[in-house]
Amino acid sequence: MTVYTASTTAPVNIAVSTLKYWGKRDKQLNLPTNSSISVTLAQDDLRTLTSVATSSEFPEDKLWLNGKEESLASERTQNCLKDLRNLRQELESKDDSLPKISNWKLHIVSENNFPTAAGLASSAAGFAALVVAIAKLYKLPQPTSEISKIARKGSGSACRSVFGGYVAWEMGEKEDGSDSKAVEVAPLSHWSNLKAAILVVSADKKDTPSTSGMQTTVQTSDLFQWRIKEVVPKRFEEMKKSILDKDFTKFADLTMKDSNSFHATCLDSYPPIFYLNDTSKKIIKLVHSINEFYGKTVAAYTFDAGPNAVIYYEDQNESKIFSFLYKLFSKVEGWESKYSQETLGAFEQQFDSIKEKIQFQLDDELYKGVNRIILTKVGDGPQDTKESLVNAEGYPKA
Amino acid sequence: MTVYTASTTAPVNIAVSTLKYWGKRDKQLNLPTNSSISVTLAQDDLRTLTSVATSSEFPEDKLWLNGKEESLASERTQNCLKDLRNLRQELESKDDSLPKISNWKLHIVSENNFPTAAGLASSAAGFAALVVAIAKLYKLPQPTSEISKIARKGSGSACRSVFGGYVAWEMGEKEDGSDSKAVEVAPLSHWSNLKAAILVVSADKKDTPSTSGMQTTVQTSDLFQWRIKEVVPKRFEEMKKSILDKDFTKFADLTMKDSNSFHATCLDSYPPIFYLNDTSKKIIKLVHSINEFYGKTVAAYTFDAGPNAVIYYEDQNESKIFSFLYKLFSKVEGWESKYSQETLGAFEQQFDSIKEKIQFQLDDELYKGVNRIILTKVGDGPQDTKESLVNAEGYPKA
Repeated sequence: MTVYTASTTAPVNIAVSTLKYWGKRDKQLNLPTNSSISVTLAQDDLRTLTSVATSSEFPEDKLWLNGKEESLASERTQNCLKDLRNLRQELESKDDSLPKISNWKLHIVSENNFPTAAGLASSAAGFAALVVAIAKLYKLPQPTSEISKIARKGSGSACRSVFGGYVAWEMGEKEDGSDSKAVEVAPLSHWSNLKAAILVVSADKKDTPSTSGMQTTVQTSDLFQWRIKEVVPKRFEEMKKSILDKDFTKFADLTMKDSNSFHATCLDSYPPIFYLNDTSKKIIKLVHSINEFYGKTVAAYTFDAGPNAVIYYEDQNESKIFSFLYKLFSKVEGWESKYSQETLGAFEQQFDSIKEKIQFQLDDELYKGVNRIILTKVGDGPQDTKESLVNAEGYPKA
Repeated sequence: MTVYTASTTAPVNIAVSTLKYWGKRDKQLNLPTNSSISVTLAQDDLRTLTSVATSSEFPEDKLWLNGKEESLASERTQNCLKDLRNLRQELESKDDSLPKISNWKLHIVSENNFPTAAGLASSAAGFAALVVAIAKLYKLPQPTSEISKIARKGSGSACRSVFGGYVAWEMGEKEDGSDSKAVEVAPLSHWSNLKAAILVVSADKKDTPSTSGMQTTVQTSDLFQWRIKEVVPKRFEEMKKSILDKDFTKFADLTMKDSNSFHATCLDSYPPIFYLNDTSKKIIKLVHSINEFYGKTVAAYTFDAGPNAVIYYEDQNESKIFSFLYKLFSKVEGWESKYSQETLGAFEQQFDSIKEKIQFQLDDELYKGVNRIILTKVGDGPQDTKESLVNAEGYPKA
C-alpha cells in the first residue's frame, strides 16, 4: 500500500489583526466587506501542526483534531478539499507521470501547541495548516496568494495565516471571490522586533459566534456602512504605510483606533454585540495611561471578537511596558516559561524606580479578570517540518 | 425692605433622552451637533424645587443647593443670570410702573427630592428650575421655547426640562444659537401611560465627565460624523412620528438603537469613552430576552452618559415586565415605596406562572450591580408651587 504524506505548521493570526475583518458580502465564499491587515504570530508560542496522508486504501476522508476524531462534513471544509483536489487533477491531466492521487481519500491529523483553554480561536491556523499541508502533499505549483483563497473558504481569516510577517487581505471586487486573497505587506525580517503580549481575559461564557455576529452587524448597523465605505479604505493604506515605514507610533494609533471602531459597530448592531468586558476596558485604559506616562506611544491594544487583549510593543520598549504589566499580572500564568527570575526581578525593580512618578491608579485586582498571559512576537508563515503526526499507514501516531 | 420671591419645580429629564445629545458645535453657548428628543419624568419621583428672592438690600448673588452654599461664579450660570436680567430690563424700560428689580442681587435656594447618591445627574432639572423661577420672579412674557434657550446656556439638556411630556431640542443653525431651543412634541396627556424603571447601576467611580467626553468624540470619532449627518436626522423625524402615533414598538426600537449608536460613538472616540459596564450590558440583553419571550416589544432600554439603565414600557404591560424585574431586583431599594406587598406578590406569582416557559438564563447575581430602582413615568413640565424654600427676608428657611 502506497501512502503519501506531508506535514506543515501554520501560525495563529487570530486576535492580532490590526484592521478588522467583519461582515461578509458572500457567506458561502467568505468574502469580506472590507480589506484587512494582520500580524502573524510566532509559532514557537502558537501554531497548528497538521499532517496529511492519502492512499487508495483509505475508505473515507477523516480528520483527527487534538487527538479526537472530528467531522469533515461542513460545507466549508468540503469546499477546501474540492478546490485542492481540482488543482491536483489539473496537474495530473497535464503530466501522465504523476501518481493519480486526487481521487484518493485523505487523512488529516492536526494538533495545536496551545491549550484550547487559552481561549484563542484556532480556526485561522487550523484551516491554513490543512490547506497548506494538502497543497504540499499534492505538490501544487500555485503561488501562496492563490492558496490563500482556498484557506479563505474554510475560515475567512485563515487566508492571512498562509504568510508570515505583515499580511493584507485584499477584499477584492469579483462575485466569485477570485480576487479576494492574502498578500504579503512586509516579511518578518522587515520589522522583526514587534512583540505581542496576549492577555487572555476570563469570559462569562462564549459570546455571539463571529459568523452570526457579522451578519447582524452588516444587516443592522448604520455606522458599519460608514466604517467599511469611508473609514477602513483610508486606514488600510495608512496602515500599510506605517508597516513599511516601521512607524510604531502611527501603527499603534491606527491599531487602537480600528479596534475601537470595530467594537463600536458591534455595539451599534441590533441587538447589540458585546465582546469587550469590564476587564478589557480596564486594559484599554491602562495602555493609554502607560503611553501617557512615558509621553510617547510605546504600546497598542487590539481586541478581536472576544475579550482577550493583544498588546503590541517594540522589543526595545519591553521593560518600559513590562514594569507595569508584570506588576499588575505577575500572578497569572505565562511569565516563568518565558523569562528568568532575574529578568522578572528586573521588571520589578524598574517599576519600583518609577512608581513615585505614576499619576494614575493601578488596579490591584485587575489580574483576577485575566487567565494567562502569552508572550510572543511577529513570526513566520507556515513552515515545512520533519515532525509528522501520521504513521506509515497514514493513521494518527499513538 | 421689599423682598420679591418666586418658586417653581422642574423635572429631571437626564438619562431618559431617546435621541441623544452629544457633542457641541459651540462650547460657550451649549449648541449641539444634533437635534435630540427626550421624555420628561414625573416630578413626584424626581424633581428640583427652586425658590428665588431678590431685594435691593442683598449685597450679592447667592446660591444654596441642598442646604449648602455654592458658588455662582461659573460662566454658564452667569450667562443665564445676565440673559434673564436683560429681559427684565427690557420690560422695565417699557413700563415705568414696574419695580426696577433687574439690578438687584438674587438669592437662589434649590433642593432635589432625590438623593445625590441615586447617581442621577441633576444639572438639567437644576438649571431649568433656576431659569424658570427667575423668569417667574421677573414676570417675563416670553414663550417657554424662548426661556429654554436661556436654560440651554446653563446646561445643554436643561432646555428640554422646561416642557413636560415629549420634548424635542431643535439644534438650530445660527451661530448665536438663537434658533437652538426646546419645543413640545406632544404633551403628557397625549401619551400618558408611558412608564420608566430606572436601574441605578453601581459605578466604579465617576467616569469621563460629559463635557470633556463630548469634545473628545466630536474631535476624534469618524463614526460620530456619520451619526450626526446621516443617522440622527432621519431618526429624529421617525421618533417624533412614533410619539405622535403612540407607536410603542417603533418608539422602543428607535430608543434602543439610538442608545447603542450613541455609546458606539463614545467607544469610537480616542481614547475611547466607556459608560456601559458589564451590568449595563446584562440589562440590555435582559430587555431583548424579555421582548423575545413575549414575542413583541414590551420594553426598551436607554442609557445616558453613565451605566444607569432607563427601561420604558407602557402601563398595560407592567406586570409582564415586572414579573422579570421584580424577580431579579427584588432585593434592591425602590419597590416598597411604590407598590403594596400584595402587588409585589402578584408580580412574583406572575413570574411563577411563566417560569417553565423561559428559555434564557436569568442571572441571580445581577441585582448586585444595581443600587436602587426608581419607578416613575412620563410627567409634567415645571410647576408653580406654594412651597417656598426662602423666608420673608429672602434667606433659606432653617
